[in-house]
Amino acid sequence: MSAPKSRTLTLQDVADLARGCAFLGSGGGGDPHHAFMEIEAALAAGGVIELMELEALADDAFVAPCGWIGAPTISLEKLPSGREALQGLRRLEEIAGRRVDAVLPVEIGGSNGLAALLLALRAGLPVVDCDGMGRAFPESQMVIFNIRGQKATPAILTDDKSNCVVLQTVDNTTEERLARAVSVVLGGNCHLIEYAASGRELKANALSGTISDALCIGRSIRLARESGRDPFPALFAALQSSRQFDQAGVLFDGKIVDLQRETRGGFSVGRAVIEAFGGGQRLEVEFKNENLIARLDGSVRALVPDIISILDRETAETIVTECLKYGQRVKVVAASAPAALRSASALAVLGPAAFGLPGPYRCVAELNEWQPMAEQSRG
Amino acid sequence: MSAPKSRTLTLQDVADLARGCAFLGSGGGGDPHHAFMEIEAALAAGGVIELMELEALADDAFVAPCGWIGAPTISLEKLPSGREALQGLRRLEEIAGRRVDAVLPVEIGGSNGLAALLLALRAGLPVVDCDGMGRAFPESQMVIFNIRGQKATPAILTDDKSNCVVLQTVDNTTEERLARAVSVVLGGNCHLIEYAASGRELKANALSGTISDALCIGRSIRLARESGRDPFPALFAALQSSRQFDQAGVLFDGKIVDLQRETRGGFSVGRAVIEAFGGGQRLEVEFKNENLIARLDGSVRALVPDIISILDRETAETIVTECLKYGQRVKVVAASAPAALRSASALAVLGPAAFGLPGPYRCVAELNEWQPMAEQSRG
Repeated sequence: MSAPKSRTLTLQDVADLARGCAFLGSGGGGDPHHAFMEIEAALAAGGVIELMELEALADDAFVAPCGWIGAPTISLEKLPSGREALQGLRRLEEIAGRRVDAVLPVEIGGSNGLAALLLALRAGLPVVDCDGMGRAFPESQMVIFNIRGQKATPAILTDDKSNCVVLQTVDNTTEERLARAVSVVLGGNCHLIEYAASGRELKANALSGTISDALCIGRSIRLARESGRDPFPALFAALQSSRQFDQAGVLFDGKIVDLQRETRGGFSVGRAVIEAFGGGQRLEVEFKNENLIARLDGSVRALVPDIISILDRETAETIVTECLKYGQRVKVVAASAPAALRSASALAVLGPAAFGLPGPYRCVAELNEWQPMAEQSRG
Repeated sequence: MSAPKSRTLTLQDVADLARGCAFLGSGGGGDPHHAFMEIEAALAAGGVIELMELEALADDAFVAPCGWIGAPTISLEKLPSGREALQGLRRLEEIAGRRVDAVLPVEIGGSNGLAALLLALRAGLPVVDCDGMGRAFPESQMVIFNIRGQKATPAILTDDKSNCVVLQTVDNTTEERLARAVSVVLGGNCHLIEYAASGRELKANALSGTISDALCIGRSIRLARESGRDPFPALFAALQSSRQFDQAGVLFDGKIVDLQRETRGGFSVGRAVIEAFGGGQRLEVEFKNENLIARLDGSVRALVPDIISILDRETAETIVTECLKYGQRVKVVAASAPAALRSASALAVLGPAAFGLPGPYRCVAELNEWQPMAEQSRG
């Protein structure tokens, strides 16, 4: 007797998923709230979301990773028309000369973790339980599909006005640079379908199970709160039992006392300073769409690609970079990135050096001398 | 007995055309020298250029305006691969689902006046004797096809590395903004096919006979020089007998004593100051790819869309903006733009206000109180 190969997601699942995606976004990928509301409306109208295991995908299936490119700060004000993703999907099908069989999030982090569900609902397609980043990254070539040699193009950008741009590039870095420039002209945020692939390629390359991982993370936090327990240990337990994540802990507990944030070159760039209650130690978090580095009184405590998320210290709801505010009382949580992102070839594309940060990369567990998860309580 | 509907161009014709295109470019469109050398090689290899009258085009023909977009300063150093235009043409044919029957220059000015000939040679197609600007303009929506309501897209950008970008936009201004951003990412200069149209549309909208006009201008200058005559009266006579141009004259005679030029936002932007021999009066010419305004000691003497070209004062060879140098001894010549560019609807798109220049537009003949051409000698 074999396990079921797919299941449908309830509205509660989607709410839990949104919470988990926000955490995995490392501050980026956009606040999932708006995408959640769109899915809520689509489910109320009778839509069904089928989540399909990666392993169940046929080798010759044609699958489309999708998401939004731009500065998350802009996505707060520039709302989608709701037609962008389906327009892009239809254009891809015209170019490929065949129908798409399933979709997936190019990145599980933030709003982009939900974008594929919305496209799936509208196109009547299943969502594959996987993604290309295991978190969120600011640049589109920072994806396992690029690291493992897939081609980004044809890539299709679509906006709320129905403009459409098709990129066919000779390398994936040019694709990112063109997509970024196009997103800026189209108002700072637009939908992007890229790295379309066969089922065989996806099974070889994608990060499997990350939608389920995000869902479990979000559900664990909710269940702890509902039963009056501290949600942080529940979060860490969920990470430990996940497919892609393991080491995690609280880096810092305090209040945001300084915040710089600007939209530059199509990205949200800045830093937040968090001070311990009663003064004393300070943690500084730098971000470019995503939180990239955390320094405790100048000493590095977490580095990209490890996940650095800033959470409300009571509810464990993640506060994405565009929603950070002076005075928020937060815990800063770090978690080790999926192992596939920590190889030398992956770090060359998405490690500290790719952002001009001091390196080399060291895992958050090593930087903080964390003991293996089972032996300590953390936070 | 009807007149012939097409003729083939000799290498001498192409050299004359290059000279005429440089003049009509109003300083822009790029130095035609490199394109001329490419055509020379293609003709030597047995290629034939067929120049076809606009009126001879079938109503249901499918025609592709083509040219290069970017900063002319960059085109001096970033040479084409020679494959860009044909790659773009084939992509257009794929999208349209039919073969292109003929090509034309989107702008007659500068190197872009020759680009269509090169594409025609490589694709084995005729060139239609017309263009969309009657000169050169810095922005792609500054074209008669836009003013007369044609759609710019699908527009296809291609570069020397074989990158290809297809734009499908809801308006022609967005097409320009996207094409500009893409050209910057692709190194500051790339090939662009846009405003593809039927023969019927082209006959209704294009500026007819401008390739022949440019050829006559170039030939007249050469013939005058070969027979030891002053080439400037020959230039003015050629303009007067042309289809699209009439009023013309010398605005100023002097030496370049100051020059500012930078590449900004994908354009060559700057100004040249020309001083009369022995000091005294100064003419200042501002440019954005093309020369836009000429002021004599602060008083406006010529304004876009009228043509303002800076010519070597001995040979009457036009010096495009990217080739201007301190110390060059020049005559600044102005000519009235084609009448179609001087309507109120055209001026809204490509007149002084579109460049943030003081207006309203006044014709160069009026600004300089020129008498009708036949009554005066000028220069």
